[in-house]
Formats: sequence, C-alpha cells, structure tokens
Amino acid sequence: MVDYEARGVSPHKLDVHNALVGVDPGLFPGAFCKAIPDVLGASPEHCYILHADGAGTKSSLAYLHYKRHGDIRVFERLAQDSLAMNLDDLLCVGAVGPFALSNIIGRNARAIGGEVIAAVIRGYSDFAASLRPHGVEIVSCGGETADLGDLVRTITIDSTLATRMLRADFIDCAKVQPGHDLVGLASFGRAGYESIPNSGIGSNGFTSARHDLLHSRFRTQFPESFAPEIAEVAYTGPADIDDALPGSEMTVGDALLSPTRTYAPIMLLVLERFRQSISAVFHNSGGGQTKCLNFGENIRYIKDNLFEPPAIFKFIQSSAGRSMREMLIVFNMGHRLELACDPSVSQEIIDIAARFGVEGRVVGRTERSTSGNSLHIAAGGETIDYT
Amino acid sequence: MVDYEARGVSPHKLDVHNALVGVDPGLFPGAFCKAIPDVLGASPEHCYILHADGAGTKSSLAYLHYKRHGDIRVFERLAQDSLAMNLDDLLCVGAVGPFALSNIIGRNARAIGGEVIAAVIRGYSDFAASLRPHGVEIVSCGGETADLGDLVRTITIDSTLATRMLRADFIDCAKVQPGHDLVGLASFGRAGYESIPNSGIGSNGFTSARHDLLHSRFRTQFPESFAPEIAEVAYTGPADIDDALPGSEMTVGDALLSPTRTYAPIMLLVLERFRQSISAVFHNSGGGQTKCLNFGENIRYIKDNLFEPPAIFKFIQSSAGRSMREMLIVFNMGHRLELACDPSVSQEIIDIAARFGVEGRVVGRTERSTSGNSLHIAAGGETIDYT
Repeated sequence: MVDYEARGVSPHKLDVHNALVGVDPGLFPGAFCKAIPDVLGASPEHCYILHADGAGTKSSLAYLHYKRHGDIRVFERLAQDSLAMNLDDLLCVGAVGPFALSNIIGRNARAIGGEVIAAVIRGYSDFAASLRPHGVEIVSCGGETADLGDLVRTITIDSTLATRMLRADFIDCAKVQPGHDLVGLASFGRAGYESIPNSGIGSNGFTSARHDLLHSRFRTQFPESFAPEIAEVAYTGPADIDDALPGSEMTVGDALLSPTRTYAPIMLLVLERFRQSISAVFHNSGGGQTKCLNFGENIRYIKDNLFEPPAIFKFIQSSAGRSMREMLIVFNMGHRLELACDPSVSQEIIDIAARFGVEGRVVGRTERSTSGNSLHIAAGGETIDYT
Repeated sequence: MVDYEARGVSPHKLDVHNALVGVDPGLFPGAFCKAIPDVLGASPEHCYILHADGAGTKSSLAYLHYKRHGDIRVFERLAQDSLAMNLDDLLCVGAVGPFALSNIIGRNARAIGGEVIAAVIRGYSDFAASLRPHGVEIVSCGGETADLGDLVRTITIDSTLATRMLRADFIDCAKVQPGHDLVGLASFGRAGYESIPNSGIGSNGFTSARHDLLHSRFRTQFPESFAPEIAEVAYTGPADIDDALPGSEMTVGDALLSPTRTYAPIMLLVLERFRQSISAVFHNSGGGQTKCLNFGENIRYIKDNLFEPPAIFKFIQSSAGRSMREMLIVFNMGHRLELACDPSVSQEIIDIAARFGVEGRVVGRTERSTSGNSLHIAAGGETIDYT
C-alpha cells in the first residue's frame, strides 16, 4: 500500500488551506462555494459566483487510453468531468443557472494534437446541449488553449463557471441543521439523461486510483503519463485498462474514464420545490464521504445506510489493500451528492431522483453535538469515526 | 537557431484555431474577446465576457529563480502576469470593470509547497489592490489549487476574469477603420503605478526566451523545468539568470521575470474621454507586433515608427540569432498595447499615458487595402511585410 503523499498528492491539502488563511471569505463564510456581492450587476439582492474546477489527473488516464485505442471520445468525456465537477459544486449553494462557462486547456503540443483540443471543446458543447432540455442553461464564453510543454506533460483540462443568484436563495451549508436527514443520490448506474452507464467515480482521487489499479507495464510504455519522481510507486496495480472490471460489465479503463455525473437536472426540480427544507448540499468530491465534516458547527453526522460501494471502488480497495477508512476519505463510494433536509421531504426528493433513473436513499442524519463536528460511519460491518 | 516547433510550441497555434472552427463566435464575431448576451443579468443592452489567460511557461523560470535565490516574490509577480495578460485582453474591447476574478493553480506538490501557493494568492490580491486607487476594481471570487504531479512538472498559474458592459461601449476590432493612427504604449520603463522598472516583456514567448537565453547548466540542474522530449534544444543560450543584461541595469533573470504591465489605469481615462474615436485596441501578446493582422477586413497596417526595442528583446535576438521578422511575431518589441484611433485624438492619448509615466507614440497607421489584411513594418533599417 502506497501513501498518497508519496505520489505527490495530499488528500487534505493542508498547506493549500493554510495558504488561504486570511483571504476574504465572501458573503457567506463557510459555504460550499464563495459568493461575492453582485459587482457586475450591482443588485443588492443578488450575489455572484465564479467557480473553478477541472478534470484533474483523470486526463493522464484518458491519454493512455487514447494512445492505445485511438478513441477520441475519452477527451470529449473529460470536458464533461471538468464541467460536472464545477457545476455540482454550484448546486451545493442552490444555484440553478443560467451559467456562463470558460475553459482553460494546457497542453504539451508534442503529445496532444489539435484533434484532442477539438474533442475537448466539442465535449463541453455536447454536454451543455444534453442538459439544456432539462432546463440547465450553460453558455460558452470561449477559453484559452496554451502550449505549455515545459510545464504540462500531456494535457490539463479546467473550467470556470459563473452564475448569479438571489441571496435569499443561497444554501449556506455553514448553517446545516441538526435533526435533518442526509439524502444521498447514487453516483452509479445510468440516469435518464446519460447515454452510457456510469461507474460511479467522479473526477477526483485519480492519482491514487490510476497507480493503485494499473499495471507497471504502463510505467515503461507511457513515462510521460506520471511524475518521474514517483516512478517507484507509479502503476503498482494488477490491472490493464482492457481487463474486465470484476462485478461489472465494464472494462477497468472504461469504468475509470466513465464521465462524472451531474445531478443538475434532478437538483433543478428538487430546489424548485424544496429549497426551504434543505439546510445543506454536499458534493463528495475530494474528501469523499468525509466532505461534510468541513461544514457547519457542532454537528454530528451519522451515516449508517450508505449505498453498497460500486464495483470500481471495491476493485480499487482490494487491489491497493486500502482500509475502508481511507477509501471513504478519497472516493464517494456510492453517492457524490448529499442533501441535508427536513425528514418530511426526503421521500419526495428520492422520488424526483427516481424519475431520472437515479437511486436516492436516506443514508444518515445530522444531530447536534456539543464538541465540534464529527462523523460516524457504519459501513461494510465496520464503524468508523472521523473528527 | 532553434525552431519554435522543435520545442513543442506553435507560435500560430494553427491546429488550435482549426479546433475552434464552427464554435459560436458570440455577439461580435472577430472581436478581440468573445462576448455573449448578458445571460446572468438578462439586460438586452449589456453583454457579458468571461475570459481566461495565464502566466504560461514564465512560471518555469520563476521556479528556477526561486530554487536558486529563495525569493518568493517571483511567484507573487506571476500572479500579476496571469492577471495583467487577462485584464489587458479585456481592455481591447473597451471593458473598464468592475471585474470578477477566479484563479486556477495546478502544481506538483513535491516541487511546489504551500508557501508558493500563498505567494501566488497574495500576488493576485496585492496587484488588484495596487489598481484600486486608479479606479480598476477587481474582486476575487476564490479559485482552485489542484495537486497534479502526474500532469504538471512544477506549477501552472491561470486566471479567469468576468465583466459585463454596455453593448454600445464594446470596441469591436473587426471594424477597425482605415485612416486611423496606430498609437503604441510602451511596455518598458516604470509606470507611476508600478513599484519597479519593467523590462518590457509580457507573459508570452517564454518557451523561446528561456531556452534561447539560458545556459545549458540549467538543463542538468533543473531537469524538471522543461519537457524531456526537447532536451537537445533546451537551454541553448549563453546566459545565467544572474548575469547582467547588456544595455540595462537588470539581471537577465530579473528582466525576464519582470511582471507584465497592465495598461488599465491609463485605458480607463482614455476610454472615458475617447471611446468613440477608437476603432480597435490590440494587445500584442502571442503574435507580437503581427497581432493586428488577425483583425478587420481589407486593412493595410503600416508601422514605421516603432519604439527602439528594449534591451531584453535585443539580447534574445542576438543570443538566438533570430531575424527581426521572427522577433516581431513572438514578442511585443516595445509596445504591448496599441490603439487604432482618429488622428485628432492621438496626442491626447499620448498625453494621458505620459501622466502615468508611460511613453506613447504614433507607431503607424491603417490604410484601406483591396486584397485582405497586410502589415508593413519598417524597423531597424529593415522593411518587413506580413500577410
């Protein structure tokens, strides 16, 4: 088993958090996304959000897949990863759009040709188009593609989303309520608005997932796909991208490259009906099921009815010999979006998700604590506590 | 002399331009920045712009300088590079703010610690604060710092700026007028709003500048600072970063790392008084003095009174044995911002710049052409034509 730090990744990014100490937290300190006054529109009732995220090191895996199979669609899907990671962060504050999108691509022009750039741009456009019939309006403002071979080994794919909303509609998870249900929405399966089944993985944890799962042959075949400093702990896993994923109908590569689901179509309806009954929404990206711990005051989060982890997470766990405690910190393990809501509306939220073919369930609840935030998880016969 | 392509950089990015064929050009096709309808504010009189840019491979040079000297300010200045490159693009459409800012940092956590991230974030904040007394309002919306060691050798520094403006105020350089003066504003010297003298270089052309100027000792000392595929053409120059730059009081390293000037304080006053007399503004970043060629229809650009090139560009040219024709395509060579304006206002624009300690001059003019765009430059005893 290899430490995350040994591969140059800090799952908690403590030094980054320290770097942000003293930075203006905006209108709603402790919220899921920073909001500022409506500086562009000058409406005192509105706030403005400009939010950035990206596909992370998933693009390194897409690169290997493309080099072997020549299927350009892997890069279209990375655009979805970048956009969905961003969009679903914004859902956590109750934003419903319209959204304005700008994208940034950094590439090594010797590894990544124009056909890849075209695929990424097409991916953003196609994904936005697929959401439009569900009332999710994302308008592209263009972007920047930079030739950065001296900095970028293959390709980086990032995006920025802007939106503006009524301050009164803002969901501030700093004020998450005790006595609320935690409703989880499945990250796996196939939603009605998706064209292929989803393995459940988001676009985070990929430094770990790639190296834990994939075979050392990728180390010699694609040295440009990882940091040379970590060569000893690169690709230490058992699998090839073309192997069947145990317990699934996907290959390992397809499961890992399965594009990040957005919950936007579901959340637009949920927010329209139940905004006032929702005290927090969490996007379980980096931090996984422990994400909630960062939010609220004196809240004890209890999760004792999690989804059975999808096959991809079981395979990562068994291949790397990782504990459930660790897995829950890095991966969503079954649901990427989680709502804290009045128990009276939980079933109706689950029903709305079901209309889109996405399973929901009450995965747990919040209680008042007297000693800061804590998280208790009972899963797979284990009980695990985090503070 | 080394081809740009050999180092994995295309100065024209033809494949990227081809990748964008068919993408919606927005409200003003052929303008310097894409503008979309005011989707967030729904005002039919306004347009909205979300624009992305970054510090490019200048960050690789900052990394070497930091490794040798431990002076963290080089990273503060990279934030200025990223922001000024972005902001000055927006000046080209006549935007005067307020602006909302989001930033994206990608890093290799083994090479770049939290103190660097803190410096970059401080750099954005300090640079914005330095512009506020001049009426340039930039509000930070936060950002994303991602651990991407498998993708990023050291650090990438990008930003996105949003603004909203009246459509009637938009300067559309697709409509650049013949019979206008071309007024250039110097990229070098020290503006009243700058704390140190500026070498004149922007944050583009750095793959070329770094390798053309710096000595091969950096190849062995800092292999993480360039793409291994280009090792044979990496750091082929004569200089150390601590060498004196001929014809200047700066070292080569300080001249290269001199932070990109913004012209925003000057342009706010210029636009307030002369917006109606300006038919185009060009930011001579990638493309250098030939940038204008991409804009307008049937315009012959004539530049026969350019600034004497600053020392840094002369040194790059002589070290690499590059032709003036090439230099003018990659670097600004003396002025990074250029306005096409009615000749009656040229002197007043130059006077406004002078109040900020920035030299301006009529560098040339526009004429009507019958056969597409062309550019004629007379400089250093040579005449050079581009089409």
